[in-house]
Amino acid sequence: MAKKRTSKLRLIPLGGLGEIGKNMLVVEYGRDTLVIDAGLMFPEEEMLGIDLVLPDYSYLKKNRERVRAIILTHGHEDHVGSLPYILKEVKVPLYGTRLTLGLVRGKLEEYDLTDVDLREISPKNSLQIGQFKLEFIRVCHSIPDGVGLAIHTPVGTIVHSGDFKLDQTPIDGRATQLDKFASLGERGVLALLSDSTNAETPGYIPSERIVGRALVDIFKQAKKRIIVASFASHIHRIQQVANVTFRSKRKLAISGLSMMNNIEIASKLGYLKIPDGLLINIREIDKYPPREVVVMSTGSQGEPLSALSKMASGEHKWIKIVPGDTVILSASPVPGNEKSVAQTIDRFFKRGANVFYETISPVHVSGHAAQEELKLMIGLVKPKYFIPIHGEYRHLKHHTDLAKEMGIPPENILLAENGSIIEFTDSSAQIKERVSVGTILVDGLGVGDIGDIVLRDRLLLSTDGIFIVIVAVSADTGEIVAGPDVVSRGFIYVREAGELIEEAKECVQSILEQCAERGVTDWTVLKTDVRNTLRKFLYDKTQRRPMIMPIIVEV
Amino acid sequence: MAKKRTSKLRLIPLGGLGEIGKNMLVVEYGRDTLVIDAGLMFPEEEMLGIDLVLPDYSYLKKNRERVRAIILTHGHEDHVGSLPYILKEVKVPLYGTRLTLGLVRGKLEEYDLTDVDLREISPKNSLQIGQFKLEFIRVCHSIPDGVGLAIHTPVGTIVHSGDFKLDQTPIDGRATQLDKFASLGERGVLALLSDSTNAETPGYIPSERIVGRALVDIFKQAKKRIIVASFASHIHRIQQVANVTFRSKRKLAISGLSMMNNIEIASKLGYLKIPDGLLINIREIDKYPPREVVVMSTGSQGEPLSALSKMASGEHKWIKIVPGDTVILSASPVPGNEKSVAQTIDRFFKRGANVFYETISPVHVSGHAAQEELKLMIGLVKPKYFIPIHGEYRHLKHHTDLAKEMGIPPENILLAENGSIIEFTDSSAQIKERVSVGTILVDGLGVGDIGDIVLRDRLLLSTDGIFIVIVAVSADTGEIVAGPDVVSRGFIYVREAGELIEEAKECVQSILEQCAERGVTDWTVLKTDVRNTLRKFLYDKTQRRPMIMPIIVEV
Repeated sequence: MAKKRTSKLRLIPLGGLGEIGKNMLVVEYGRDTLVIDAGLMFPEEEMLGIDLVLPDYSYLKKNRERVRAIILTHGHEDHVGSLPYILKEVKVPLYGTRLTLGLVRGKLEEYDLTDVDLREISPKNSLQIGQFKLEFIRVCHSIPDGVGLAIHTPVGTIVHSGDFKLDQTPIDGRATQLDKFASLGERGVLALLSDSTNAETPGYIPSERIVGRALVDIFKQAKKRIIVASFASHIHRIQQVANVTFRSKRKLAISGLSMMNNIEIASKLGYLKIPDGLLINIREIDKYPPREVVVMSTGSQGEPLSALSKMASGEHKWIKIVPGDTVILSASPVPGNEKSVAQTIDRFFKRGANVFYETISPVHVSGHAAQEELKLMIGLVKPKYFIPIHGEYRHLKHHTDLAKEMGIPPENILLAENGSIIEFTDSSAQIKERVSVGTILVDGLGVGDIGDIVLRDRLLLSTDGIFIVIVAVSADTGEIVAGPDVVSRGFIYVREAGELIEEAKECVQSILEQCAERGVTDWTVLKTDVRNTLRKFLYDKTQRRPMIMPIIVEV
Repeated sequence: MAKKRTSKLRLIPLGGLGEIGKNMLVVEYGRDTLVIDAGLMFPEEEMLGIDLVLPDYSYLKKNRERVRAIILTHGHEDHVGSLPYILKEVKVPLYGTRLTLGLVRGKLEEYDLTDVDLREISPKNSLQIGQFKLEFIRVCHSIPDGVGLAIHTPVGTIVHSGDFKLDQTPIDGRATQLDKFASLGERGVLALLSDSTNAETPGYIPSERIVGRALVDIFKQAKKRIIVASFASHIHRIQQVANVTFRSKRKLAISGLSMMNNIEIASKLGYLKIPDGLLINIREIDKYPPREVVVMSTGSQGEPLSALSKMASGEHKWIKIVPGDTVILSASPVPGNEKSVAQTIDRFFKRGANVFYETISPVHVSGHAAQEELKLMIGLVKPKYFIPIHGEYRHLKHHTDLAKEMGIPPENILLAENGSIIEFTDSSAQIKERVSVGTILVDGLGVGDIGDIVLRDRLLLSTDGIFIVIVAVSADTGEIVAGPDVVSRGFIYVREAGELIEEAKECVQSILEQCAERGVTDWTVLKTDVRNTLRKFLYDKTQRRPMIMPIIVEV
């Protein structure tokens, strides 16, 4: 008699669906829970003052005794960035490839997490965790040493693409292991979860090598210094810049702490080979003629405090841009950063630099598979069910369209959201009720303490400022003993608004008198009266709506 | 003996160079000043709470007795939006084509400007204003009835392209008058000022008609309601939607006041022909089967309060999106609006709509000439000097590169900025000193009263909120008679931060005591002490930097 199987396989995405960033997926069977990735996201524009956004990991805290491991597909922030926060609350082993762990180790140390159990995985080995058997599949992406996963469960095999593309001529020669995906497909796959970031992009993503060729052309024409900006973790891009620099008989200086750290780690672990004697210290670049120097820098997103922004605005300590310098933005603006990147480009042009960027030159390629690659993946893996992951809703939606084109029956395509519980039995799959998932906002040292009320106040304050009214009242008699006085910030330029301020004071004075006449002694009533009257007065005069804050001091 | 000519011709761009928006150009010769366009711009992200941005027209106020006219090239906001503000300060006649004046008239009435001297111009007629003779050249753009200008001056002829493209098969059959530009070129042109918006875009902009074809295809597949969003002033787009609606045997409802107004004006003036019986009232759409209705709407930029955003979030009064509805975003996101447009698309997808937008379908074409068109314009006009206008700095820069390719000598290409004084004599042209130009921020009723200080306060307040400390002190003895008390907004969720608040109070108490011991009675010193100590305390505890505001009430 066959062993009775009452347990169901459940997949619960806690982040990364309906958004680009904070990827995290829970895989559960019986008493065993795996977590795939633990990323972060950068705040949306309306999240005023927020530093970072984490996926809601309360589900992990609640079920912490069942969590066996966190598996990392690769070392990007949107896949590993939440680890320092989550590992403080849920102690579990961390599995990742050598480079991924190398990058994560440094990050954990910054947060004083030195006792984390890091376990190296490799595409060559498999792994048993609880009732799950895991295989790792090498995938090519914009950071080396990424993997996809095959998770063999009692209900069937789940294939997770990781972040991938199908560059046939990658810089390190390590292409995506299509043969392994194909072999899994042959053996039978229950469900494929696949990266949707570029599901709207037709065709194929060109090879990373075309960037190298563009760099060669630009370097050839450059008569003075060359600045190349890219992501600190894009080791292959750094490799290409180093190679072209070497062949151009120039020296390479690095600007940006994260890039220096990553270069050190990647070099030590053998993922990056910088020719001997190529690197020079950024402080020494003035010792070299301009045409013998290349600077590689972070800040490709136009971040206001980055090295690149400082160069653009003439505030960089070591690098002054002069007419004839060459600047290459070897990156794409992350959605939301278009304006700051454009501003950085304009500033370099104003300094007389020749600026190259994605719009006008092939100096960047994406790290995520485009439509034809996504279809190829579905064709090889031939899953029974298809679940698009990693993308805003429209990317997931277009990925489901591709899956339909590839012959997956529409009822077997599961368009899930963060918090969806996708439940598999031997014979079915369905999206059940959802676990409650929000987002956890990090502001300074506060993790999750900023909620809607504080953000609404910040929005109000940012729009029209604050208008404070202070009155001191005798505790004995209720009479006004000082004030009303007013102070404002962010509302109006006070020195030029003396009349308005005086009128506002008179307005408050008269409300207080009226309240006294009516015998109102409840301060809440009084404050509401002041607030309402002032709001109307100020709006009539200015059509602005500052936050109005009446303060009554009892003496 | 020839008449002595001491006057110089000067061009002073007051807006639109180094930015997309608020276009305004001053043309001066002797005692005659013309203004070409008077546009506005929407605020940048960092201009917190600001409603509109105007060009700095103080130069016009200062020289008002010389300003003879404002000439409008077309009716877009970035060319006419500042008129209500400028005309309140500088009374001059306004020249524009019939549709342009039609659109402007309504806008001026909103601002109670009913006595403006509006004078109609036409490509068929020329005009003498002071020492300038003006000819108007019909140009094709994303609004009908646009013109370019030839300004004949004693020093030579200035050609201003207006906003143009070279659609050979425009919807109204009125293509850009290349023959007129060519003829001006033959007669000799001193300087060409040309639209740089798309100077980074290779090739040609496709004809507006390809949008019509895409609409036909989408309409054919649509089984339920169709919503088309576009700019309210894009009369040709509205015409195409109306035509396809008519041929699909559907009815057309309009959502959005500005679009309704524009349709009325354009129809009355003969620029739009809506078939009889096609339009229905938006309130009545439920009387028609879904497959017989098309709604045309504003809000293509994802503006939070627009009709389209309300449909996307399920809050529109008359239109509920159901699965199977079709939504077409027939517009491009203006830079900075990418995120809000993407969010709107995602929301429609979540409601089960089929959504079509520029990334995935040819439902929009630009209104601005691309590189080959720009080169053609330079080739026909054959100007001695070339001045790129209308564009961010990188667009101007790339436009100068195109001019070089077209054989304009580099020294004859003038890359000016807002406020540059470009001075022409019979034999030379050069960029002289600049007039001081800033921007004028409009916030509610305030025009120009918000400056850097208020904006910096808003930024501070938006990032970490405000922390107010109140103490009442006896005027006689200097003793504390009430408080310290604290109130905060936008800093921390107070209900969960009781301990921090208590510690902060203690912190203030102890500073006040120390000050009393040290005999400090100067309140400025006291406030500075409180501010500095609290800043450090709060930063240590939270790593946030709220605005700290000590308030001392003397009783």
